[in-house]
Amino acid sequence: MKNLLSMESVSNEEIEAILKRAAEFEAGAKSQLERDYLVANLFFEPSTRTKTSFETAERRIGATVIPFEAGFSSTLKGETLYDTVKTLESIGMDAVVIRHKKDAYYEELLEGINVSIINAGDGAGQHPSQSMLDLYTIFKEFGKFEGLNITIAGDVSHSRVAKSNIIALRRLGANVNIVCPTQWQAEFEAHHDWDDLLETSDVIMLLRVQHERDAAFEGYSDESYHTRYGLTKEREKRMKDGAIIMHPAPVNRGVEIDSSLVECERSRIFKQIENGVFVRMAIVENILKGRN
Amino acid sequence: MKNLLSMESVSNEEIEAILKRAAEFEAGAKSQLERDYLVANLFFEPSTRTKTSFETAERRIGATVIPFEAGFSSTLKGETLYDTVKTLESIGMDAVVIRHKKDAYYEELLEGINVSIINAGDGAGQHPSQSMLDLYTIFKEFGKFEGLNITIAGDVSHSRVAKSNIIALRRLGANVNIVCPTQWQAEFEAHHDWDDLLETSDVIMLLRVQHERDAAFEGYSDESYHTRYGLTKEREKRMKDGAIIMHPAPVNRGVEIDSSLVECERSRIFKQIENGVFVRMAIVENILKGRN
Amino acid sequence: MKNLLSMESVSNEEIEAILKRAAEFEAGAKSQLERDYLVANLFFEPSTRTKTSFETAERRIGATVIPFEAGFSSTLKGETLYDTVKTLESIGMDAVVIRHKKDAYYEELLEGINVSIINAGDGAGQHPSQSMLDLYTIFKEFGKFEGLNITIAGDVSHSRVAKSNIIALRRLGANVNIVCPTQWQAEFEAHHDWDDLLETSDVIMLLRVQHERDAAFEGYSDESYHTRYGLTKEREKRMKDGAIIMHPAPVNRGVEIDSSLVECERSRIFKQIENGVFVRMAIVENILKGRN
Repeated sequence: MKNLLSMESVSNEEIEAILKRAAEFEAGAKSQLERDYLVANLFFEPSTRTKTSFETAERRIGATVIPFEAGFSSTLKGETLYDTVKTLESIGMDAVVIRHKKDAYYEELLEGINVSIINAGDGAGQHPSQSMLDLYTIFKEFGKFEGLNITIAGDVSHSRVAKSNIIALRRLGANVNIVCPTQWQAEFEAHHDWDDLLETSDVIMLLRVQHERDAAFEGYSDESYHTRYGLTKEREKRMKDGAIIMHPAPVNRGVEIDSSLVECERSRIFKQIENGVFVRMAIVENILKGRN
Repeated sequence: MKNLLSMESVSNEEIEAILKRAAEFEAGAKSQLERDYLVANLFFEPSTRTKTSFETAERRIGATVIPFEAGFSSTLKGETLYDTVKTLESIGMDAVVIRHKKDAYYEELLEGINVSIINAGDGAGQHPSQSMLDLYTIFKEFGKFEGLNITIAGDVSHSRVAKSNIIALRRLGANVNIVCPTQWQAEFEAHHDWDDLLETSDVIMLLRVQHERDAAFEGYSDESYHTRYGLTKEREKRMKDGAIIMHPAPVNRGVEIDSSLVECERSRIFKQIENGVFVRMAIVENILKGRN
Repeated sequence: MKNLLSMESVSNEEIEAILKRAAEFEAGAKSQLERDYLVANLFFEPSTRTKTSFETAERRIGATVIPFEAGFSSTLKGETLYDTVKTLESIGMDAVVIRHKKDAYYEELLEGINVSIINAGDGAGQHPSQSMLDLYTIFKEFGKFEGLNITIAGDVSHSRVAKSNIIALRRLGANVNIVCPTQWQAEFEAHHDWDDLLETSDVIMLLRVQHERDAAFEGYSDESYHTRYGLTKEREKRMKDGAIIMHPAPVNRGVEIDSSLVECERSRIFKQIENGVFVRMAIVENILKGRN
């Protein structure tokens, strides 16, 4: 791959190769890069886990990471994203990981830019590396995607990872259902009650209520949302044997999920984070090796 | 040690071992870590010297440091400290160094967290690594703690290092006196004038007036505090032969200490900073080696 | 060199040595430092390219870079710059790269400080490393400075690099002309129209309109400045064969230069950035090697 921009831009075969390599890294494989590669992480929106995960993955495969403080850069002087990225390319970067509030910010970077772009979240667009780690987590659990029942619950309209996952999981043969208030279903069909989704789902994937995005939360308090759409202790008991709980985190404890369920037996929430490093090692390695 | 939380949590023997190893590092010893350890520094309050000192110490012993920008992390999205630390553990950290404005913030991390915690300052609580470097500085000077007269002057109530030092130094056999205005003595007994402390002290340890903490500074201007409690040029002349001046820094020149004394012959202020790197190398190494 | 403070502080011979070493680095030479050197980058003003360029150059020559977040340091607690730098020296830094809003901030660091200082921009003072990379770019193009006609267009009064370049280029034998509004010419003589400078210049060096510095922009809109002083498409056509366009960046597209010229054949704007890494490798190496 030259870039990783969205889940439409990667084939099922490319996904398979990434998941296979991630499993090798998890089993202890070391990366042998042929030269010193330079990578920078441009996070124009706050992040703990994605940024730290990439920072760790890049070092683990032996790349050199050049720090970039988005909140203290020349974008404050009005520099365009194109010029910032072209500057980093001129300085010698091989790849840049970017999170930016603008949907599909990368479109203005496709022409004239040679450095590889890894999308770590674009506006209300996609979040492909998170989607890949979710796929890895699901595949490790069930050994397949075909025929799995996967329910995504919450604010799909503002969720980059939901969009990436719906596209990828459906293409890989899973049945994806959505449950959320009408104002959050975006262009997708959705259930407005849990109905029998609890009893039939292999995976329940909760989304964060994004209070900071002025999400259309009208009509719901944290409590009433929890009651109607959250994964309560009662709902968890109705889940079928072997079914798992996922969440991209950070979690609003007591809103989309009962606090006591975050580390329950079904939960893969911190496992997802653990898996993320192996998957990102595979992604960055794949992209850097593709540059020769 | 698994964690370093407060001076109550370390024995005199553990302190002794750290000081001995710090002396080896100062003499040029190299650390041989058996594997690649990951460490992150979570400073939720501004810091130059403690953060830079840990960053340097960690690299000097060969650990891999993963950057963490507290002011740009998911805590802005309301994530709990527990979830942030658990996330970093899942990403693969072996140890995290934390400074946080909440007293004893680490208590909520003792259950369910496996990563090692090094406390770099909790609210108005403690600052054990600074205390250890103070102990190292004193021990290098006098070769003992037993029977030394040590005077701590200033805002004990807001000073983490004062609390850590009072506990540790008294347990190690030193006589610790405090001089400060009534409102700053906290739970300790204190002198409200220098009395004969200048003539009898082996160590005078000044504390910073913490203007930024809205400290109870009523009744004192910078000048009147300097006159009544500061180390003036006149007071320095009354100190006994071989007595030293210490300060955890940053210094308010002309408030707790006359500016011309900061680098005077008795001053160990920049020496303390130098010592800090060796002591922190010993602390982090001890904790990382304890993880196997 | 012990420090790099301004272009007056380096001789023509020292400049020549830096440019020669930069060319070796560009040709693939590796640096062999004799020991582990520690370097920190203190940027008290926002920067992308200079900071990232130094960060990259320092790593490429094998130095260890200790992170320093100016916006989250003890300067917030009122610490003086002297005390911050003395602290970093005590922690073990060999060199610090500093950008600071105060003119000649380094003067208070000349006495009592042992760590090497590399000035990455002082107030409205100088920017010597940028000047050196400009010299390198010009020398690679023309093989000499003697007799070259160089026109600097824009806000000289607020431009550190313009001042550094005027001093260095004139001393190296180039003819330097300035074109700008009266209020921006500072202590220099200047043209207030392009006159015949377009036809006679070997190098046209544009400066950024520094909107963020409250520059004396009265009487000009972005458009009227562009029309009167900017490098328009029409003006570019009047430039002589082989003449080049330079700009320290970030660029205000459509203000000091037409957007379509930023990557035109004459433009060396991104080449300057590329060259900057080699030049800074040479500068930092020279200074670190001088410490033994």
